[in-house]
Parts: sequence; C-alpha cells; structure tokens
Amino acid sequence: MLHAVAQLETPCLLLSLPRLKLNIERISSALSGQGARFRPHLKSAKCAEVARIATQPHFGGITVSTLKEAEYFADNGFTDILYAVAIIPARFERAAKLIQNGVRLQLLLDDPTVANDLNAFAKKRGLSVHVLLEIDSDGHRNGLTPTDPRLNEIGHILLGSMHVTIDGVLTHAGESYGEDTAEGIQSIAAMEAEVAVKCAEKLRNMGHTAPIVSIGSTPTVLLNAANPGVTEYRAGVYMFMDLFQSNLGLCSHDDIAVTVLSSVIGHALSHNRILIDAGGLALSKDRGTGNQAKDYGYGLVRMANISSETTIVTDANQEHGLVLWNGTDAPPPIGTLVQVLPNHVCMTASAHNRYYVTNEQGDVIDEWQRISGW
Amino acid sequence: MLHAVAQLETPCLLLSLPRLKLNIERISSALSGQGARFRPHLKSAKCAEVARIATQPHFGGITVSTLKEAEYFADNGFTDILYAVAIIPARFERAAKLIQNGVRLQLLLDDPTVANDLNAFAKKRGLSVHVLLEIDSDGHRNGLTPTDPRLNEIGHILLGSMHVTIDGVLTHAGESYGEDTAEGIQSIAAMEAEVAVKCAEKLRNMGHTAPIVSIGSTPTVLLNAANPGVTEYRAGVYMFMDLFQSNLGLCSHDDIAVTVLSSVIGHALSHNRILIDAGGLALSKDRGTGNQAKDYGYGLVRMANISSETTIVTDANQEHGLVLWNGTDAPPPIGTLVQVLPNHVCMTASAHNRYYVTNEQGDVIDEWQRISGW
Repeated sequence: MLHAVAQLETPCLLLSLPRLKLNIERISSALSGQGARFRPHLKSAKCAEVARIATQPHFGGITVSTLKEAEYFADNGFTDILYAVAIIPARFERAAKLIQNGVRLQLLLDDPTVANDLNAFAKKRGLSVHVLLEIDSDGHRNGLTPTDPRLNEIGHILLGSMHVTIDGVLTHAGESYGEDTAEGIQSIAAMEAEVAVKCAEKLRNMGHTAPIVSIGSTPTVLLNAANPGVTEYRAGVYMFMDLFQSNLGLCSHDDIAVTVLSSVIGHALSHNRILIDAGGLALSKDRGTGNQAKDYGYGLVRMANISSETTIVTDANQEHGLVLWNGTDAPPPIGTLVQVLPNHVCMTASAHNRYYVTNEQGDVIDEWQRISGW
Repeated sequence: MLHAVAQLETPCLLLSLPRLKLNIERISSALSGQGARFRPHLKSAKCAEVARIATQPHFGGITVSTLKEAEYFADNGFTDILYAVAIIPARFERAAKLIQNGVRLQLLLDDPTVANDLNAFAKKRGLSVHVLLEIDSDGHRNGLTPTDPRLNEIGHILLGSMHVTIDGVLTHAGESYGEDTAEGIQSIAAMEAEVAVKCAEKLRNMGHTAPIVSIGSTPTVLLNAANPGVTEYRAGVYMFMDLFQSNLGLCSHDDIAVTVLSSVIGHALSHNRILIDAGGLALSKDRGTGNQAKDYGYGLVRMANISSETTIVTDANQEHGLVLWNGTDAPPPIGTLVQVLPNHVCMTASAHNRYYVTNEQGDVIDEWQRISGW
C-alpha cells in the first residue's frame, strides 16, 4: 500500500517507523545492565502494532491508563497488563472479567476503603487479584508516602488475604517534567527510587513479599543510573517524543516520530500569519512548552526549506492553526503540506483514530488504528 | 431507557436536554425581530439529534467546520450546509460529491488562486458551486478586508462565471471572546457587521448579487442589536454554554448544558487535593478561562453540597484531574460521582463519542452519538 503522503486527507497523524524504532532501541540501551524489567506505557500509543514493537526487546508486560486500553490490548494478545490508575469499586467488574479471561492484571491502590472493598469483592468471586500500592515520591499527584498511615492500614487489611496480593509499589516521578537539566532529572529519579524502595521495605517488614518496585517517566528512565532496589521501569512518551521532551534535552526535533500532517489553507500576511487546517482539535490545546525555555505555542510547523524554529502555531482555533509568518518570505501556496511537531504527543494523538506509518523516505507504508475513549 | 447516571462508566459526557432547549430558545428570542436568518454552527455539537432541535426554530440551514461534519449531517437529512473553513483544492472532490448528492453546500474563499482553481474545477465538472468570501472584521484570524486587493481579484475572477456564484460574505468576530462587557461585545458586533456589509457592497458594485451577509459568534449574536444589512447570523457554543461564556457574562453556571461525569478516584489531602478520573483527555487541555477574571483551571467540579466556586481542576494529567480541596472538609468518598463544568465545551466534547442525555431530574433518558475526526 505504499503511497505518498500527498494522497492523505489532512489533518492526520504520521508515524515515522524508523524513528519509532530508534526511540525504542534508545530506551533499551539506557536500561541495559540495570537488572530491572521494562514495562512500556501504552497510554500515548493506544495501538497494538506499536505495542508489539515496544515490547519486543522486553519481557512483554505493558502499562495502560484505562480499562478500555487493558481490554483492547488483551484482545490483541497481551496478557501481562498493569492498569496504572487507582482502581475504584465501580470498575471491579470490568477488571474481574479481564482476570477471568486469563490476563495477569495488576491494579493500583492508595486507599484503605478501596482495599477493603477489593478484598471483599475478590473473596466473594473467588478471584486472585494482584495490586501495587501507589506511592507519592514527589508531591506531583497522589499516592502514599512512607509515613502516610494509609500505607500501614492497607498493609494490614491485605496481610494474609487469600485473594488480594500486594505485588509491590509503584510511583511516577511527574515532577521530572519540571526539570531541564540532566542533574535535576537524575536527582528526581534518585528520590523516586528511594521513596518507593522505602515503602516496599515497610510492606516487607509487615510480612508482605512485595517483590516489585516500579518507577518511571521518560526523563527519569532515559537519564537514570541504576537504582538499587528498583525492579521495574515504566515510560511511554519515549516511543514518540515531542517538543516538551526536546525542551528537556531528551531528544532532537528529528527524533520526534509522530507529527500532524496539515495543509496550508490561508494567508493573512498583514497579520504576519499563515493558516493551516490543524487547529485545537488536531493538535490539542496542550501548552506544555509554555513554561519551558523555548515556547512552541501549539506546535512547530515543518515544511521544506523553512527554518523550523520560527514557524510556531501561535494560536489554535477549533479547525484553524495560526502560524507565525515573517513578512519577507513568500508564503507557501494554499494546499502546501506541512508537518506539525506536537507539544505533547499523548494529547495530540488523542484526536486521531489512526497512524499513517511512514518509511525512511517519508512514504506511507501502513495504516494502524488507535483507540480512544474509556 | 430511563436510568440513573450512577450506572454510567466515567468519564463521560452528560447533556441536559432541558438546558439545551432553554439555550436554544434564548438565542431565538435574541434574534427575533431582527429580520435575519439564523444558521446554527454544529461544530460544537457534532450530533444530528442536537442539530434537529437547534434548527427547528429556524430555516433549517446549518454551519459546519469540517467536510466530515458536512457529510454526516447530509446523511442525516440536512440539505443546506455552510462549510465555514476556507476550501482548498484537495477538498474539491469531497465537496463536489455533496453537491452532486443534492446538498446546497456553500464554500468559503479568501484566496484568488483557489477561486481560479475552483472555477476551473466547477466548469470541468459542470457543477454549480456557491461560495461566500471570508471577511476579516477584527484581525482575529484571516479573511479579506474592504481594502484587500484580493477581494477585488476574487470578485473579478468569478464575475460572470457560469459555475461559481458568490452568494455573499461571511465573518466571525472572534475578538468578541476578548471582551467581557456587553458594551465591548456590542462594539465588536457593530464592527463585524459594518466591515462585512462594506465588503458585500463592493462585490455588488462589481456586479455580483452577493445577497448574503453572514456574521456571528455566540457573544455577538446574544448581545446584538439589529445590524442593517446583515442577513444571516451564526453561532454554535450557545447551545451548550461553558465557563468561558459564563465569564463573559453570557450565562450562569446553571445554564451550562454539557458536563463531564467523573468519579473521585483518590485523596491527596496533604496536598489539598482530591483526584478525579476526568483528566486532560476527558476535559481537554483548553485553558480558555486562564486570562479571564475568574480562572477555572481545567474546569469546575460540582458535587452535592459543595460550593462549586472552590473545587477547581487545577491540573490535568492524561487520566487524572487534580481538584483543589481545602483542608477542613471531609473529602467525598472514593467513587463519588461529580460533574465537571467545561472551560470550552467544543474542546471538551471532542474526546467523547456520545452524549448521555438527561432530563430535569438528572436521569439518563437517551444516548446520542457524536462524530469526530476529519
């Protein structure tokens, strides 16, 4: 099905297969010799074909952020799945169905009431459920600290349970996104590991085996040194990369594997802008680079012969991207195809239901579906 | 199919049918006696059932922002469709198919080259194509001003064309979103009308009939006085309303018809927050209220007995909403259902593939599909 991108309807999502593979190889190199497993996070990709490539160098386990993703990947043959958002009782049934269908599903917990409810549910159903406790290593979002009384409470509730096993602990160093030096990121990574290991040891002291200490984010995994006690790493955006990650110094613009193909649809040269058909829906309204050293607005436009540092999407209406255009150059003719590098690829990809997969020459070689919703 | 919202999987979109109907009645009242037609914009709703209610008090024509919407609404029986984003040659074929299937489709133009191409295309195909010229009344995005030489050029290219008819002009006063007083909005509306009428008159002086002067945005339509020369108004977000529009003084929070139903999934009280399962995907990353008098972060959470002015979604990770929670009140238990009022409903709705339609009592009475993509 090889064909040129010019045959595609815009806006749409392009995925460079060579870049994807390089990014996946790169994280494998970063992890080699650390003696820990790697469990790719598929929340960015939401695509079975990408998942197969991403898991190939590793043990086969994946991370997801919704039960819909868990169900989709289970349907596509993945059997070791970590659902890395805190479980609530209303979702026990869907989780149970996955477990009954043979998925080695891990659930996340940080609340004693939910731990109690899950234990009762699993007992009633005769299920064997595996959980990780969510740890807060940096105040970024939620979870348990070593001194949080809920850690002990959950430990006690599940001690000796015949139905719910604490596999260990999990944390996500979201604060690493606020760092832009290798040293800053590494110090977050060290803290992430230290806090998680401490919590796992508390659980072990209570009598749980809790063998797993799972940490990770793209910055901390890529720049990490070995962390004693850490058994598993997770990351997701590393496969695709984006402008936010490039601003953190973790990749070049050429490493970004996912772009939005868009058409020039207008000229407003008296306002120093051109218009493209990738707006707030196709790019997302994520302003992740807004507080970084280099602000790319809603994305950076690449086109032939144009310095890509200046053609920023300064505003995004629903179906219009407003692109900064200096007054002197002749604008690209209406219909010119451009590629927009995303600020935050997880958000940008979400509006699109497929990837058009490209080869080294930039031609389309395949079309991969991606899922959305909950 | 009447059932309680408690049976829904979260996050999902709720649409209050009574509020929708009130909002639709309200704009009809605002327009009554103005002697102009109203053509609802369906880019926010993307749903045939909503379109039927919205067009019912008017002449039946609709506005859309993508050809996919045009095709979808045509399939659902709508035959008078304005595609209000500048056409490019790559989309001529899809547009032609709609016209050949009997749709009275209007296309938008602001570029002489495209006008030439369209004329040649329509001639070659023996099509009768109707266009509006896009006018820039406020520097907000793009379009032609009365003194822009492109206005004359396009007028000349299409004068006497047997295949492309200039129906008139169209403008969208996007700058009205920057005003927050009735006077400010009304002055934008007056300018919008004045510039558009002036451009239409230029076309008429050239020999075009150009009967249509189409203007509009939710603020300018709701607060408008009659504008001599304006024949058609457009607006879209008025059906649903959102926090951005309430900050403009155009509605109360109770008027907002679309909310995101979400579950409380965690407590992080030491950080003064609770967690909900509506994050950046379910709410969008639109920060539209960020520069307004009252900043609602990524949305405002409503729950029973809670003052809704304080429970703001301060941060939105992919599947986590971080909600401000003061230290003194007991937090809502895990699993509590909340509703999030959206910042910008067009963006928020886009991640969801259906509306759960609720009645006055808040029970679910129907499920309406919505489309996405291009």
